[in-house]
Amino acid sequence: MAVTDDVLGFTVGVASAGVKDGTPKRTDVALIVSDRDCTAAGVFTTNEGIAAPCVITRKHLEHGRLRAIVVNSGNANACTGEAGEGNAIAMAQAAADKIGCDPHEVAVASTGVIGVPLPVERIAAAVSGMTLRAGDWNEVAKAIMTTDTRPKLQSVEVRLGRGVVHLRGVAKGAGMIHPNMATLLAFVLTDAEVAAEELQEMLEDAADASFNLISVDGDTSTNDTLLVLANGASGIDLRGDDLKKFGAALRGLCETLAKEVLADGEGVTKVFEVQVTGAGSAEDARRAARTITTSNLVKTAIHGADPNWGRILAAAGRSGAKVDQTKASVHIADVAVFAQGSPRAFDSDAVRRVFEQRDITIGVDLGVGSERARAWGTDLSAEYVRINADYTT
Amino acid sequence: MAVTDDVLGFTVGVASAGVKDGTPKRTDVALIVSDRDCTAAGVFTTNEGIAAPCVITRKHLEHGRLRAIVVNSGNANACTGEAGEGNAIAMAQAAADKIGCDPHEVAVASTGVIGVPLPVERIAAAVSGMTLRAGDWNEVAKAIMTTDTRPKLQSVEVRLGRGVVHLRGVAKGAGMIHPNMATLLAFVLTDAEVAAEELQEMLEDAADASFNLISVDGDTSTNDTLLVLANGASGIDLRGDDLKKFGAALRGLCETLAKEVLADGEGVTKVFEVQVTGAGSAEDARRAARTITTSNLVKTAIHGADPNWGRILAAAGRSGAKVDQTKASVHIADVAVFAQGSPRAFDSDAVRRVFEQRDITIGVDLGVGSERARAWGTDLSAEYVRINADYTT
Repeated sequence: MAVTDDVLGFTVGVASAGVKDGTPKRTDVALIVSDRDCTAAGVFTTNEGIAAPCVITRKHLEHGRLRAIVVNSGNANACTGEAGEGNAIAMAQAAADKIGCDPHEVAVASTGVIGVPLPVERIAAAVSGMTLRAGDWNEVAKAIMTTDTRPKLQSVEVRLGRGVVHLRGVAKGAGMIHPNMATLLAFVLTDAEVAAEELQEMLEDAADASFNLISVDGDTSTNDTLLVLANGASGIDLRGDDLKKFGAALRGLCETLAKEVLADGEGVTKVFEVQVTGAGSAEDARRAARTITTSNLVKTAIHGADPNWGRILAAAGRSGAKVDQTKASVHIADVAVFAQGSPRAFDSDAVRRVFEQRDITIGVDLGVGSERARAWGTDLSAEYVRINADYTT
Repeated sequence: MAVTDDVLGFTVGVASAGVKDGTPKRTDVALIVSDRDCTAAGVFTTNEGIAAPCVITRKHLEHGRLRAIVVNSGNANACTGEAGEGNAIAMAQAAADKIGCDPHEVAVASTGVIGVPLPVERIAAAVSGMTLRAGDWNEVAKAIMTTDTRPKLQSVEVRLGRGVVHLRGVAKGAGMIHPNMATLLAFVLTDAEVAAEELQEMLEDAADASFNLISVDGDTSTNDTLLVLANGASGIDLRGDDLKKFGAALRGLCETLAKEVLADGEGVTKVFEVQVTGAGSAEDARRAARTITTSNLVKTAIHGADPNWGRILAAAGRSGAKVDQTKASVHIADVAVFAQGSPRAFDSDAVRRVFEQRDITIGVDLGVGSERARAWGTDLSAEYVRINADYTT
């Protein structure tokens, strides 16, 4: 997408600070700056071990206004005690000094190894020396990568009666991906003008319909952060139907980014969508769908293209959701393998062919009520084990 | 242990019925028979997809009395609809015909692939042709194996004022191991005389302190069954303190079997014990301990001997248990890596050496209250993925 079609009024910078081990090898610090005051909204991890940058950013968001986001990869600044919060504040201060604003107007995010003190002096020096320019979103997406194999970014244009507003999204993922409010790091910038309360409400809806449905490994990170900044540079303030259109665009953008995070998860070769129907409650539907996506036995069967559908029903059965065994059914793509409580004769080669694709759909009807939910998961490969058996070294 | 030291009044038989694919390659049916009426107790899977043999056995246990257990490997008779229950009843009938008792006095258990109709005629024929003899417990343990690499059996003698009673335990495990009442299959036989209600109570305590604390892959099976039969052949009826001694022996036996199941889990090279302290409630302690044992990131770090302790705290933090980050602490064996809410400088080679052992202890204090719990987990290896990517074929 050409710069002229992009979100207005934002500049970015990146730098190599050698955050992980002191040796600058790749860009690992990024700064996103609005040329004017923004309304802002955010959702954060529900992990009790919430990281220092999330604590500080949540505090800075209390007034619903931000000017900038400063972010580093290579160190999560999580489980780092009181010193960690001091370091997160120092990161905000460095960005505030750079652009001339109050540190409370800066959001801070970190990703990487847990439990290692953040080398904040190196980060502050890198921020201070940055050159800010428009349009370098790919550079931002690259600077926040950890075990991601590719940058994740997305842009959307929303045509409204009074003109066009833009949304730009950047995300990273890869491991410890089982968001329970947001995913590891995702930032959305828009030039629309939106009130902070409405922005927060739309963001929570979007997170629930996107990031909160994905799982790579069932582990909810300490650093999950999803932020949206709206600077109004388009000159268009959102009201009535325009708000709905914008909300739908935000949801779509988040869904696309969430699926990119999933497809680039650690060791992932395939992704699958679970569609649960016939649940007794919305909570049961969600619980069954999420449990199936996190079952190692389901994930390895899909990895090996093994048509072992019993594991899918067994995962639903242990999820806590009510299941009526005499009415339940399971579909792999459009192949019925279990219907009305009994196994069906089916072409196992057909199921094997479905499981050999990169995108797989599984339908499970719990046979109880009429509630439904979706969730998205990944296969489990030996490569996942290799990556995670030797991460810190 | 010599036969004369073994539990009195039981005989066993095994046979090769070719349960999995029609070709008899190994023993896959076993029958355990008491020469007299037994009191009996059982606990079963809490999976909503509970298998037909568990449904039938639970029904047969309603009067607290049994004469025999008939069991097959190679097919779980789970997710098999109404026909599945008919087949489980037919298995009980075949055993009843063999030994001359009522089919309601027979417990039925099955383990193997889910969702495939049980070849009950082959099993019935195998039972009919069996030779029953005393002491062949190793043969029983072998006949119920699936991906287990070794038979699991245990015997205990309890010396009481009035003589000696014996307990014999047989179990199988390997995959879909995250018991939530009992483990895949475990049978305990004793020649003590115990009332059924007391037996049930002691068995539930023992299961909670053993099988319900282990996890290989976080998936609760559809077929979990733990049974105990007490035939009184020792001539000793248990009362008062003797009951307590017997209960402790039963708990110890179950713990030993549970740990054998864990150590022989699919692709397992190491086991670890998580000791959670400082929890705000017993439920929180258990939840944190169990969540740490099921975290793929913790399991892969231990597999790779990677001293990445932040994952342990992150798993506790997402478990739903309350954690006070400013007071929490983490120990790997006796190495303090995180204390009073801050990371400690530690010798990472020392932690690596701990993780390279086959038996590892991890301590996590949540910093909230005084409740504690333990749980036992396994590492996650590429071999686990290989085994489970190609199970049904």
